[in-house]
Amino acid sequence: MAEDRSGPGQAGRTPPGPDAGPALGLAARIRAGETTARAVTEAALARIAARNAEVNAFTTLLADRALASAAALDARIAAGQPVGPLAGVPFAAKNLFDLAGIPTVAGSRIRRAAPPATRDAWVVRRLEAAGAICLGALNMDEFAYGFTTENSHDGPVRNPHDMDHPVGRIAGGSSGGSAAAVAAGLVPLSLGTDTNGSIRVPASLCGIWGVKPSYGRLSRQGTFPFVHALDHVGPFARSVADLAAAYDALLGPDPEDPAQAPQPPEAVTPGLGAGIMPDSAIHALGAGASGDRAVGLRVAVLGGWFGRQQSDAARNAVAAVARALDAVETVEWDMAEACRASAFLITSAEGGALHLPDLRSRLEEFEPLIQDRLLAGALLPAAWINQAQRVRGLARDSMRALMAEWDILLAPATPVPATPIGQEALALDGVEVPLRPSMGLFTQPISGIGLPVVTAPVQAAEGALPIGVQLIGKPWTEAVLFRAAAVLERAGVCAAPVAPAFAEGAF
Amino acid sequence: MAEDRSGPGQAGRTPPGPDAGPALGLAARIRAGETTARAVTEAALARIAARNAEVNAFTTLLADRALASAAALDARIAAGQPVGPLAGVPFAAKNLFDLAGIPTVAGSRIRRAAPPATRDAWVVRRLEAAGAICLGALNMDEFAYGFTTENSHDGPVRNPHDMDHPVGRIAGGSSGGSAAAVAAGLVPLSLGTDTNGSIRVPASLCGIWGVKPSYGRLSRQGTFPFVHALDHVGPFARSVADLAAAYDALLGPDPEDPAQAPQPPEAVTPGLGAGIMPDSAIHALGAGASGDRAVGLRVAVLGGWFGRQQSDAARNAVAAVARALDAVETVEWDMAEACRASAFLITSAEGGALHLPDLRSRLEEFEPLIQDRLLAGALLPAAWINQAQRVRGLARDSMRALMAEWDILLAPATPVPATPIGQEALALDGVEVPLRPSMGLFTQPISGIGLPVVTAPVQAAEGALPIGVQLIGKPWTEAVLFRAAAVLERAGVCAAPVAPAFAEGAF
Repeated sequence: MAEDRSGPGQAGRTPPGPDAGPALGLAARIRAGETTARAVTEAALARIAARNAEVNAFTTLLADRALASAAALDARIAAGQPVGPLAGVPFAAKNLFDLAGIPTVAGSRIRRAAPPATRDAWVVRRLEAAGAICLGALNMDEFAYGFTTENSHDGPVRNPHDMDHPVGRIAGGSSGGSAAAVAAGLVPLSLGTDTNGSIRVPASLCGIWGVKPSYGRLSRQGTFPFVHALDHVGPFARSVADLAAAYDALLGPDPEDPAQAPQPPEAVTPGLGAGIMPDSAIHALGAGASGDRAVGLRVAVLGGWFGRQQSDAARNAVAAVARALDAVETVEWDMAEACRASAFLITSAEGGALHLPDLRSRLEEFEPLIQDRLLAGALLPAAWINQAQRVRGLARDSMRALMAEWDILLAPATPVPATPIGQEALALDGVEVPLRPSMGLFTQPISGIGLPVVTAPVQAAEGALPIGVQLIGKPWTEAVLFRAAAVLERAGVCAAPVAPAFAEGAF
Repeated sequence: MAEDRSGPGQAGRTPPGPDAGPALGLAARIRAGETTARAVTEAALARIAARNAEVNAFTTLLADRALASAAALDARIAAGQPVGPLAGVPFAAKNLFDLAGIPTVAGSRIRRAAPPATRDAWVVRRLEAAGAICLGALNMDEFAYGFTTENSHDGPVRNPHDMDHPVGRIAGGSSGGSAAAVAAGLVPLSLGTDTNGSIRVPASLCGIWGVKPSYGRLSRQGTFPFVHALDHVGPFARSVADLAAAYDALLGPDPEDPAQAPQPPEAVTPGLGAGIMPDSAIHALGAGASGDRAVGLRVAVLGGWFGRQQSDAARNAVAAVARALDAVETVEWDMAEACRASAFLITSAEGGALHLPDLRSRLEEFEPLIQDRLLAGALLPAAWINQAQRVRGLARDSMRALMAEWDILLAPATPVPATPIGQEALALDGVEVPLRPSMGLFTQPISGIGLPVVTAPVQAAEGALPIGVQLIGKPWTEAVLFRAAAVLERAGVCAAPVAPAFAEGAF
């Protein structure tokens, strides 16, 4: 089974071939006995110790746990027992995922005194069941409420793609530590969450692959919550094959997660053909594609809201992806702005409700950047949220009608590449707007209606900062998005190299 | 198909045998050529003209439409074409169901100027597809926000079971017209809706059968909305077979109703056996029952919240049903009160949001009884509703755990039998409580988590007022409830005779 998933390019560690990546490459070498899980784990821990301070991605390192897992895995391999497709692959998780033995701080100061988690989050257990080894917990915006990972308690995450900038650039957020750790080659895989764009924004700014699956697809058991109707979990990686392998490992029903949806009939993705398991992303990579072209995929560019308020870099990235996927038509979804507004209201109201007792008694301990947003949310009238939910319903219906004609819609993941840490404002279409919320201009409307998105890192010109493009699919058609992502990777339009300053010895 | 559904007792019109009822009896006579749909329709229209004023159930009579439908049906029968199981059966619908050509007033003054509906509601179309003939629209609490049908615009509905009372007794609400029309024999079937108890309360007070199906089971297309997460539609009847036949006619997927749920795997009701279609209530009536005993059904009485704050009449009714269903154990659901509170908050907030523009501009045109409730709801903070939704989730989970052991739970439908129109307060367990909201004490917690309920009318002693018992099932197990209802009817514990003052010439 594990061998079935190996592509031709994954035996070599660098550079990742189109059908492999650093994670699958490592796993192949460990399974083949070329190295051991222990050696890989020790090297990864050493690299994090040496270089994490530059990006500030990790908040907790779990060396003992990781070494114990590695020893157990090496023993299985030595005994000839089967190991998973991600055998020995180091990974880390945003610090809102439960990790047994440490408090789930969710980027906060308040929760540092919380009791330690007694069990790992479901997705952490799933990655470990596939053989991956958890090295620790990653920096994030407090309570996942931000797009920049400027965390006052743990310090900001610094984008590894510009180490020469005097104050550094943001990695995006709220899963900024997760994206920076992968872009800096500290780990080849990581886990994040996305409520309004918190996987897609940092994937875009750090130039790596990320997937925000369909709402309800992956279990959220063992995660610190934010907004019930909008929270998603998903992985980051530096190749499509790595991302698909991680996503596949995370799939599956979890009876403990009431938000996880049963797979509906339409999950059988049309056009994939009878031979393809609809659930398996990695099996989809070779399907329906001929060399570097997508066959049979109907791809359009989202215009209107998604064509305004953006940099040339964002516009050019979408154009490059559109060319590679033979997308010639631009279509408009006229409810994008309303859907974003509804997600804004629902997010602040639910965040305010969630933290109400602490807001009342220890406001000053919250991240200064979110105090006012949570307070305002706690004061919103229910009638507003009621209307916001109705708008979401209408937005979903109108998008469903639009997507009857298309398999994939394209949109920028962020309006601009990474901006300097601390920057407050941004000029878009000649108008100055507040930077932090504007990073979610194009992600928020999409998660607002739960559609799956793969964020594709468009290969930047030498010296330019990376930026990502959203490949947006119908519910439950993640496999279609992975097919398109593989086409983009093979065509050389998209790639996720380690940030140059971190290339040497990267994982 | 229609003939398959005929029980032995339904050829005779009165009294309804245990396997038939006035609706199925009429349909059998019409199909057999013993009478015509036209004759039945004319007689029903004449009876309504003669006796509706006493109960004030109808707000609109659609004589031309009904006679045209009857003529078309008679022509089909004369031509030997197949007709449905409810061929020629007169029915009417609460005036919040769309009926083509008239405004859907939903009990209000404000909507009298609304444009006429262009199409019937889905459930009206379904009953007509089964051969039933719609005679008109029925009185209700304004915007379905009440348990008494004391409508200031159309006047209160009067309970047909006590015509000697100086001011009359309430029929219950909000579907009071629907229940009174059936209890007075104006029609043998009617349609209502239930958000917090609006089918079960009037069924209880008028002594007839009613079913509030699982949330999402029947399409709400073409109904004036109240609370998205709580609104249900369902029929009223005077026999279990009639109720099951109407329910069966209403079943089926409606692509236009986004709230209708796909039937989940657990819809295959355990214990029904392979030969029973899980969806068909009428096929379930004979199954698993031996004479007048229920076989293989695990039935318990709900205690705690459901055992307090009630009259002896309610307590005795539950005891009679428990005896007949071999229920000896009493179980407690400790989240009942919290679940009721959450339904209260969600209802007033969503009602307030729905009517906000009219509340701002024409408050005085609203029903005086609901003005303050809607205003208060419009001012509720979103954080409260957020918490209320969390409580609902916890309540659902705790009930799911409780129901793992049981097929049916029993509870009173109302704390007391019908009270006088205009009465404001009620003494329960020696404490005076406001009457109008208290009629939903036992119904609100159940609809709050979407469980299916058949309300069973317990045969009252001579001269006593009727009262109903809730047969509460697991989601999607309506057929199990109909089986138990049939057992109660056969055993003579439950019955829904026409109110004595209306017995002569009843439909």
